[in-house]
Parts: sequence; structure tokens; C-alpha cells
Amino acid sequence: MSLLDLDADQRAELLARVRQDYEELKASNLNLDLTRGKPSSEQLDVSHELLSLPGEGDIKDASGADVRNYGNLKGITDIRQIWADLLGIKLEQIVAGDASSLNIMFDLISASYIWGTNDSERPWSAEEKVKWICPVPGYDRHFTITEKFGFEMITVPWLEDGPDLNAIREAVKDPQVKGMWVVPMFANPTGQSVSADIARGLAEMETAAPDFRIIWDNAYAVHTLSESFPTPINVLELAEQAGNPNRFWHMASTSKITHAGAGVSFFASSEANLAWYLAIAGVRGIGPNKVNQLAHARFFHDAEGVRVVMRKHASLLAPKFRRVLDILESNLGEYDIARWTTPEGGYFISVDLIDGTAARVVELAREAGIKLTEAGSSFPLHDDPNDRNLRLAPSMPPINELEQAMKGFTTCALLAALEKLEA
Amino acid sequence: MSLLDLDADQRAELLARVRQDYEELKASNLNLDLTRGKPSSEQLDVSHELLSLPGEGDIKDASGADVRNYGNLKGITDIRQIWADLLGIKLEQIVAGDASSLNIMFDLISASYIWGTNDSERPWSAEEKVKWICPVPGYDRHFTITEKFGFEMITVPWLEDGPDLNAIREAVKDPQVKGMWVVPMFANPTGQSVSADIARGLAEMETAAPDFRIIWDNAYAVHTLSESFPTPINVLELAEQAGNPNRFWHMASTSKITHAGAGVSFFASSEANLAWYLAIAGVRGIGPNKVNQLAHARFFHDAEGVRVVMRKHASLLAPKFRRVLDILESNLGEYDIARWTTPEGGYFISVDLIDGTAARVVELAREAGIKLTEAGSSFPLHDDPNDRNLRLAPSMPPINELEQAMKGFTTCALLAALEKLEA
Repeated sequence: MSLLDLDADQRAELLARVRQDYEELKASNLNLDLTRGKPSSEQLDVSHELLSLPGEGDIKDASGADVRNYGNLKGITDIRQIWADLLGIKLEQIVAGDASSLNIMFDLISASYIWGTNDSERPWSAEEKVKWICPVPGYDRHFTITEKFGFEMITVPWLEDGPDLNAIREAVKDPQVKGMWVVPMFANPTGQSVSADIARGLAEMETAAPDFRIIWDNAYAVHTLSESFPTPINVLELAEQAGNPNRFWHMASTSKITHAGAGVSFFASSEANLAWYLAIAGVRGIGPNKVNQLAHARFFHDAEGVRVVMRKHASLLAPKFRRVLDILESNLGEYDIARWTTPEGGYFISVDLIDGTAARVVELAREAGIKLTEAGSSFPLHDDPNDRNLRLAPSMPPINELEQAMKGFTTCALLAALEKLEA
Repeated sequence: MSLLDLDADQRAELLARVRQDYEELKASNLNLDLTRGKPSSEQLDVSHELLSLPGEGDIKDASGADVRNYGNLKGITDIRQIWADLLGIKLEQIVAGDASSLNIMFDLISASYIWGTNDSERPWSAEEKVKWICPVPGYDRHFTITEKFGFEMITVPWLEDGPDLNAIREAVKDPQVKGMWVVPMFANPTGQSVSADIARGLAEMETAAPDFRIIWDNAYAVHTLSESFPTPINVLELAEQAGNPNRFWHMASTSKITHAGAGVSFFASSEANLAWYLAIAGVRGIGPNKVNQLAHARFFHDAEGVRVVMRKHASLLAPKFRRVLDILESNLGEYDIARWTTPEGGYFISVDLIDGTAARVVELAREAGIKLTEAGSSFPLHDDPNDRNLRLAPSMPPINELEQAMKGFTTCALLAALEKLEA
């Protein structure tokens, strides 16, 4: 029964009971953490073989080059081909780097800021103002980068099948709007994916800025929670067909596949974009860690080998996601005070609470020993104008701790909602 | 007997003989390469154990953290402590990154350009002009970075014990001079080292710019060609004592110790400089590849373990350097047409020829199938105003090829000198 349908007496009775629950929760002295979008130890163990790879045998890549020496700015074909196959693109369209694709995203923006992109009339730093489209809720570290460069961040709502295309079409009429962030598959934090129609719309739309870029951060391209792997949308091809070949900077990495922060990153884009990037990367350094790239290629063998690994992750993660969703439904479903996403992949569940209660829920949970990601974290400048959204990260805790934390969370959510209605 | 002391007949006779030698050289259809400052396969084999490290056992760092997961922007203590010991500095003064210290140098300059250093009044991009001191001959990739940022490069001569301190003291009276490059130990390409007096002078000198920085690229800190390891100068301490604590950005890496391009980089500096850098690095990403850092720490064990590895390199490299120096001496010594350095460490030998002949020697050698590093490579904008300097890289070729290449080189050097005198 929706909270709003309760009469004053019923509400008072419920509040008394929930307060009692909350006092008991506090008394149980928990020390739980739902903040971290990190793989669990069991997940990291999936790739334990990698810790002794590439091994002391053959250390040549597919071209016959010794991976232990300098060179090869693009990364080795062995690993590039596997990700080209996974993303459904051509080998020439992808380069492999060090561990972090976030590093590359920062560098792309930094280079555009200092020198301009290959389509820029001037460096972005020479623009009176740079604006950037940020679908919300979104990935906090994306927003931190554009904040650091002083870009004005324009939020557009994430709808169920991707960011609001109409709002974006309107925004890009402004030539100061130079780009946008988007996580296209199993997005952080909704777990939802951009549809083919929205992707095509993004590829085809006219933009006032000739150097408009979409950072298509495909961080969770193969991070299914089931046995099935959706086919990634080939935005590079869509953009080429639409006459906007340089629109997408398509990012991927092995993070949350092998070892977080110790894997291989990928940058896929048009020939012109890659040439521009590599000319700068070639000043910044000599080449990526190819020993680690070969280790990864040997570990996976091929694209199917990556899927084998991801099925193991899914078998560890899916029960946790299911448990979180079950507890949300059974403890909050009847009261109509929250909506949440039901991801089929990725690392997060996004919860919308009654407006004005998200920060209070985090505070209540903290006082009861349950750490939640701060309210507003999925918004630019950490500012959720409705104080509504929270991001849950089920991957890291053992399932019994996850259950305790989630039960506590629902108690806090209910208490905050009741307090709000009383106020 | 010096070429200049020969009479016309003697010179003509010598020229005929050298031309004959050169024709024979061309006829032998060589395909040799003296350009690459890369370790040889045998050197890379020294670290073959690393290819199966850290191994599938214990994957925790000294703090007990699982290196396979995200986090730890500073890098793991295990490897930082080893380099702190090697460089004679405190653990708190050093952070460990991914494979390339060149990447960090680029990022330091890039960040200073966009946002300014922690001592800057404004971003370097907002200065009317930025000037940078470049000791010559020096490292080409350094100069390529400052060229890319549009800095005006002021050359100062490298003397036997470091860059010309008087010239530098004069240059830094200009507030537009924001920094300088220097390789302090076994420098590229001279193989010589900065003396304690020059280092102190650099630490103590007054600079007009409050945010003047010296990139102290200690790339060859332990790269001896003998059994002895010189003690690195603690410039961080010198600078602190002189009241200029933030003057040095001290760089190092495991390149040319383990696997080139697949090792660990280090950045050592004052507390304020590190805090400034980490605040930006923390926007750029989550942390470095700690699995690779642990692999390196396990491989070395401690600072002495690094020296054990370096002695093996020395035993492979020293005979090659000795052979190059012997051939230079026996084939050119009597003619007085070249001076060369006699390095006790590092990767290069710097040769000064008769003015105006360096490019011609490269051309003659190329036509005879011997690739030399282009003339001017050790100068900003590849411009050696005297067309005098060449850099020899003995590490990569097998010793028999090295001998052939060096004999050819001396023939070309002699021919070019004789041509010059005839002209």
C-alpha cells in the first residue's frame, strides 16, 4: 500500500515501527560498505592465471616483434584484434593502451583543450566557453574530468533506452557545446543501454560545433549478468554513414574483466581521429605496456575467451544483483516510495527515492554503520537538484553482508520517506 | 698525425685510400643499425623471471591491500621503497606509476600549461611566452615535448660535468624561463654526469620565475658500465636546504633495467609538488598498474637486487662500449678529426666531428647500409648549428655487427673530413 494512501494513524504506527527497526539496526553495530563499484576477490580470482602470464616462453607478438622492447604506439595486434571482434569493428579502427581508458579520455580532452581536435578551428582553451552534455545519472569520474577543465556541464536525463535525444539535439545547436559523455551499454549507474535508434540519432544529428565529440565509454560492453551478450552498436560505422566519421571516441577496457586497474585499455575511432591522437601520444611516450597486452591476449585467446571469463563474473554477480532487487521489492515495493532499475549487466543499480530524501538516507545509513555512495554522486558537481538518486554497488561485499546492508538501506529509505511526509 | 698537418700530396693519397675503403664498404652490402638506444635481447633476458610474476600466490602489497583491485594513486610501498633507497630519498617523496616516466614528464608540463604549477601565478598557457633551457647535446624526446607545447628552447652547452651553470644562471633571470631539462647521471647522449657542485648551483640559483622547474630525468641512475654505482645526488634535499623545495621534478624508471616500456616509472619531489600532481592524476585516473609494480618488487626484492640486475647489464654492455671506443681510437685517433665521450654508464656515446660534416657522415653511412641517428637529433628542432654532433648507440647490435658498423662509421667520418678539407 502506497505511503500516500495511509491515514495519519496508520502512518504514525508505521513510523513507530520503522523507528524501532532503525534503532535495532543501529544497535547491531554494522560496518558495511555498498559504495564500491569494485570486483570482489572471487571475481579477481577468475583471472588468476594472468598473474603468471605471458610466461617465460615465447615473447613475440603476432607480427614477430619482441614485446619486451620499446615501440608500437598502437599496441599489439594480438589484443587489438580480440577487442575489434568483440566490438564488431575493424582492426585499423582500434588501438590498445595501458591499463586505464579513463586516462585516455582525460588525455583526449586535454589535447583538444591545448591544441584542438583534428576538426577544431582553434584549441578548446581559446573558446570563450566550452559546454559538455552530461546524461544523468551518470559516471562521477566523467563529470570530474569535465569539471576540472572548467567546462559548463549541461545535464540531460537518461531515459530507459539512453540519454534524451531531443534534449541533446536542442543542446548541440549551440556551437559552444563540444561534446558529451555516455556509457552506452549497462550504463553506470542505471545498468541500462542505449538503443539502436538513439545511437543512430546521435550519429546523425547536426551539431553547430564542427568538432563535436561523443565519448562513447563502452566500459561494460561485455559485462552481462546473464548468459547472453548483446551486440555492441557499431557507432563508428553509423557515424561514417551519416557523414560524421569523427564524431565518436569509442572507449573500452579489460577493467572488471581481468584485474581492475592492471589491464588493457582501448580507443577505437575513425582513421583521422586515431592519427590525431597517436601524433600526440607519440610525443607523450614511446608506446604502451606490450608485455601486459600479450599476457592478456594469451589469457583470452580470442573474443569467445573473453565471453567465457564474463560468464564466470556473471555467475558471481547475478545472485548479488538478484538479492538486492528482491530486498528492494519485498521491503519497499508496497510503499511506492522508490523506483529502481533492474540491470541486465554492469555494476550498479540506480534508485530514485522520494525527492529530498536521498542525502538523508545516506546519513541515516552511515549512522547505522552502512556506507552508501554520497547522494548526488551521479551528477555533475555532485548536485542532484532533486536530492533523489542513489547508486547501489552490489559487487564487492559477500552476499550475507550485502543482505544486511540492503535490509538496513530499505529501513533507512522508509524512515526518511516517513520523516519527509511528517515534516 | 692530424689531418691538418698533412701536405696536399699526403692528403690526396689518403683520400684515394679512404675512397677505396668506402667503395669496398658499399660493396659489402651491409644492413646495420646504430640508431636504437634499446636493450638487446640478451639484456631483456636478464629479467625473464618477471614474465611470470607476481605469480598466482600472494597478491597483497606491504600494506595488505590486494593489488588486483582499484586504488592507490601513489603506487605500492613495496616498489616505492626500493627506488627511495636507490635514489637516497624518503618514501614520502616518491610515487610509482605505469611504465613510462616520459608520460609523467609530459603530464607535468601539460598540467602546468593548463592550470599552472603549485607555485604559478597563472597557467603557463597564459604567459606571453614560455622559455625552456635545453642542455645540448641532450635527449631528443625531451625536446620534442617542449617543442609540442610551443616553448622557446634556449640551448646551453653540456660541459663535462653537467650543463653550463653560468649560462643557466644568466638565462633564469628572465621570468619567462620556466624550466629546464637535464639527465643528471650517465646522460643521453654524452654518458657524463652532473657534478655535486653543478647540482648545488642548480638548487641554489635564484630564478625570476617563482614556478621554475628542473626536470631531473634520472633515467640512468643505476645504469653503470662497471661494477661501481655512483651515489645519486639528493637534489630534493639540496633544494630544500636552499629554500627552493619545489624546484626539482625528479624522474626515474625501470626502463633498460627490466623490460623497456613495460616497467614502472617513478616521480620524486617535494610534498607540495606531489600533492599538486596527485590531485590532477586523481582526476585522470584511479591509480597505476599495481600488479606490475608488485611483480617488479618481487623480482628485485630490494635495492641491492636492482644492482644485481644492473651488473648483468653492465657485463653485456661494457664490451660493446669498449669495442666502439677502441675502433674510434684506432681508426680516427691519429687524425684529430673527432672527439668522443668515454661513458662509464648509460646508453650512448656522443661524437663531435669536424664542423659541417655530421649530416654528410650520416648520408655516407646510409649509402653504405649503416643506419646512424640523424645529425642534429640531440638538439632542439633537430638543429645542430655546427652540424657537428652524432650519437652512437652500441647496445642493440650483436658485437660483430657493431664492429662492422663502427669500422664503416670511421671510414665515413674520415671521408667526410677529407672532402671538407678539399672543398
